[in-house]
Amino acid sequence: MVLPSAEESLSRPSLPAGLRQDLVDVVGAEHVLTDSRTAGYVVDWTGRYRGFASAVVRPRDTAEVCAVLALCSAAAIPVVPQGGNTGLVGGGVPRAGELVLSLGRLDSLGPVDRAAMQVTAGAGVTLAQLADAHPDLDFGVAITSRHSATVGGTIATNAGGVRVLRNGPMRAQIRGVEAVLSDGTVLSHLSGLTKDNTGYDYPSLLAGSEGTLAVVTKARLRLVPRLRDPIVAVLGLPGLAELHGLAIRALQEVPGLVSAEFFTRTGLDILLRNTDLTPPLDAPAEAYLLLEASDAGALEALAELAGNLPVAVGHGAADRARLWAYRERHPEAAGFLAPPLKLDVSVPAGRWVELATSVGDVVTAVDPGARVITFGHVADGNVHVNIAPAAEVDGRHQDAVFSYVASLGGSISAEHGIGALKADWLPLSRTAAEREIFARVRAAFDPAGILNPGILPR
Amino acid sequence: MVLPSAEESLSRPSLPAGLRQDLVDVVGAEHVLTDSRTAGYVVDWTGRYRGFASAVVRPRDTAEVCAVLALCSAAAIPVVPQGGNTGLVGGGVPRAGELVLSLGRLDSLGPVDRAAMQVTAGAGVTLAQLADAHPDLDFGVAITSRHSATVGGTIATNAGGVRVLRNGPMRAQIRGVEAVLSDGTVLSHLSGLTKDNTGYDYPSLLAGSEGTLAVVTKARLRLVPRLRDPIVAVLGLPGLAELHGLAIRALQEVPGLVSAEFFTRTGLDILLRNTDLTPPLDAPAEAYLLLEASDAGALEALAELAGNLPVAVGHGAADRARLWAYRERHPEAAGFLAPPLKLDVSVPAGRWVELATSVGDVVTAVDPGARVITFGHVADGNVHVNIAPAAEVDGRHQDAVFSYVASLGGSISAEHGIGALKADWLPLSRTAAEREIFARVRAAFDPAGILNPGILPR
Ligand SMILES: Cc1cc2nc3c(=O)[nH]c(=O)nc-3n(C[C@H](O)[C@H](O)[C@H](O)COP(=O)(O)OP(=O)(O)OC[C@H]3O[C@@H](n4cnc5c(N)ncnc54)[C@H](O)[C@@H]3O)c2cc1C
Ligand SMILES: Cc1cc2nc3c(=O)[nH]c(=O)nc-3n(C[C@H](O)[C@H](O)[C@H](O)COP(=O)(O)OP(=O)(O)OC[C@H]3O[C@@H](n4cnc5c(N)ncnc54)[C@H](O)[C@@H]3O)c2cc1C
Repeated sequence: MVLPSAEESLSRPSLPAGLRQDLVDVVGAEHVLTDSRTAGYVVDWTGRYRGFASAVVRPRDTAEVCAVLALCSAAAIPVVPQGGNTGLVGGGVPRAGELVLSLGRLDSLGPVDRAAMQVTAGAGVTLAQLADAHPDLDFGVAITSRHSATVGGTIATNAGGVRVLRNGPMRAQIRGVEAVLSDGTVLSHLSGLTKDNTGYDYPSLLAGSEGTLAVVTKARLRLVPRLRDPIVAVLGLPGLAELHGLAIRALQEVPGLVSAEFFTRTGLDILLRNTDLTPPLDAPAEAYLLLEASDAGALEALAELAGNLPVAVGHGAADRARLWAYRERHPEAAGFLAPPLKLDVSVPAGRWVELATSVGDVVTAVDPGARVITFGHVADGNVHVNIAPAAEVDGRHQDAVFSYVASLGGSISAEHGIGALKADWLPLSRTAAEREIFARVRAAFDPAGILNPGILPR
Repeated sequence: MVLPSAEESLSRPSLPAGLRQDLVDVVGAEHVLTDSRTAGYVVDWTGRYRGFASAVVRPRDTAEVCAVLALCSAAAIPVVPQGGNTGLVGGGVPRAGELVLSLGRLDSLGPVDRAAMQVTAGAGVTLAQLADAHPDLDFGVAITSRHSATVGGTIATNAGGVRVLRNGPMRAQIRGVEAVLSDGTVLSHLSGLTKDNTGYDYPSLLAGSEGTLAVVTKARLRLVPRLRDPIVAVLGLPGLAELHGLAIRALQEVPGLVSAEFFTRTGLDILLRNTDLTPPLDAPAEAYLLLEASDAGALEALAELAGNLPVAVGHGAADRARLWAYRERHPEAAGFLAPPLKLDVSVPAGRWVELATSVGDVVTAVDPGARVITFGHVADGNVHVNIAPAAEVDGRHQDAVFSYVASLGGSISAEHGIGALKADWLPLSRTAAEREIFARVRAAFDPAGILNPGILPR
């Protein structure tokens, strides 16, 4: 954890004394943190974004969230909502003196409705808690950060993860939302109906809004049947073109395919050197495809697909977890070399091989000493481009990668969001007319303009 | 088709002459319809909603839509977008002199991208055309009105239909949208990326917005694999409780279940009397469950499920269509008795039996001579309540049904939307705070307030 320097500390704005007392009256003195007690809330997971907060406020329920926001609106104090602080684009940490509204204490989890396959969860509930809520049911979104990432944060980023091809992203799990507007008004629609066409679907809009429209306090979420004895296979391939071809075949031929993930020799070698992982296959391969599937016939279909390729197959839970670790620990890899730049992009299926093959050269053209690690969700057109820069070249890594992705008809953010990291490049993905309507929608939700200013700007 | 009376005609506002000429300059004289040539555009499918239009304007492409809307905005002329005019809530027909913007000529259908399983379609393309676009692929939304219902209209209503449990509603098919704001600005994001978290997901908001936010001109839509040899079964059951129990079991036990639909003896008897349909089973049953499924093992699972119940099974395409006709012709049934009131509601799964069993009594309590026909999408908690009123009692049918549904925690509109039909009852499903944010979002999209005024109001 990196604290602001003494100089920065001196320039920190502090809360007006009256407001501070009002906040204490709402949430209690032990939940209005200032000074060094804010340390864990002002730096992000990558260590790349560090700011300072006038205070960190930790309400325990919706009513307290309302009261805090009403006070901040009245005093025109900017607010950064924060969940598990695992976001990768610097959207959940303060930049210069905002108030951090931590939703972690809104962690109540309602009873699972087994018949409807739904549950109501507070914003601070983690995705791991959702996955464990019922023996027969699972949560549809699985991400490596699930033990910290929260319902509120994953809705706000519309998190994707390793099961999007089966279950869709967070937006597709939402059956209802409770959220608080910046003036303290509660929007609530938690009825959990599968079909409900009664006006604008604002829950879908909150999904991916990165804390700029409203503060999510609760959600009604769908659960999915827990997979019965899924099979995991890690296949070694000679290159990315072969890997993509095989992944597309798997999509069509493997019954009950849940995940199709990839990583490469570059990332794996770094993990093998820096962790206790041992090689997954007898001989190293250039590219690795991890497939998980569960329906009847999956094993035969996987065997048929693998043909003569080297493959490791995992059956039991421990074995599956062992194979998943190769993929799941990749977000850490670049961090062993330098504070990483995490770019997460997607392209149409037809351009994926080009992207995954060339993006490393695109980066080293602007920073020859940089190390580039690619991995991610191959079936969604998504590549995580993690960079350990050799030189800090002021946005030139982003510039190079995002311009390249745009030239392929892709998106500068597949699943992590825009945040602070990509704010300057939003025009590569969105037209002026779209950004104008974003601004108007934002003003409709947050006329005071206090929610996460600086994030997702025009 | 019912024309307004002579008296009404006299009171019709006509377009300012200058505006009319400007419109003719944009779309050509043959596409600016006035007077009796507007007849087919001013009455809805049920015959219940009749209005009059100052003109019907039929642009042929996005540029013409922009020009028409810019003219209407400048002149403050209210506009009703219209697709196939199959909507059931009176949302697509003019009430009193609005200009009807008919999108039917925007009917170009792009090439199918087989690998990405996507296609770009103009707003006027019908769902039947989408379903027929590629031999191996199908469209995920199937509704009885598919030969007329359009891409634009089904997005605007977020249409559901008989495959929601497998594919989700229209919102879930959208991979990109092009739409025109009331001032003529084009919002366009047709890249068709599976994952793209770069700002607010306004396409999801347009889905279900009933023509009040923007005019949809094109959409990038996902296609789904065409089912291989699906099986259709119609089962006869002694009552609705047994039917619901069996449908829930089917959801869990039948591999590749696509549809679980129901109808009752009441509706079937009316169809048998008024159409060329013959009874589906040897002996009449009280309630009928139609299941369609396609995966390996579906036939055995269906047989197991049916047990000793009377059942008709359809294998080939003609046979399947024959069985589907019992369900698909139900929207017509009430119309054989009187101009029908079509109420479409949903409740949590646990209240479905109560709703489906009691809603008839709820209606006859306010209109003892009314005939009530129920049918629909049992697995989604959805019941279509079609009423052939004996007495026109000024909203009392709606009042009774919607209040009852609200008391069960349900929605006054499962899939048809609010339109004109349900506008007065929106507060039963949405809070004041939600309706206020609807109004603010609407003003953000359509500051001039010309798009479908009167529909989806506070
Ligand atoms: C190891 C690792 C692996 C990851 N893998 C994936 C992956 O596979 N797929 C993927 O999509 N993402 C992945 N992520 C990033 C992902 O975005 C986050 O894990 C998660 O979505 C953020 O949840 P959080 O609770 O930590 O939110 P935070 O980081 O606290 O906040 C994220 C954003 O949401 C806002 N926010 C937080 N809570 C609320 C609330 N209650 N109301 C309104 N706004 C709020 C914040 O202001 C911020 O803009 C990964 C991250 C890590 C560290
Ligand atoms: C026999 C029958 C069966 C049906 N079955 C179902 C069913 O199972 N499930 C279901 O959900 N619905 C069903 N419907 C109703 C369904 O809503 C419509 O079929 C369909 O969604 C409307 O499409 P349309 O093109 O006819 O739109 P229209 O009726 O022309 O318009 C509907 C609404 O959309 C707006 N609109 C139309 N085009 C645009 C556009 N391009 N941009 C913006 N707004 C636009 C209109 O202003 C109006 O508010 C059925 C209807 C019939 C007649």
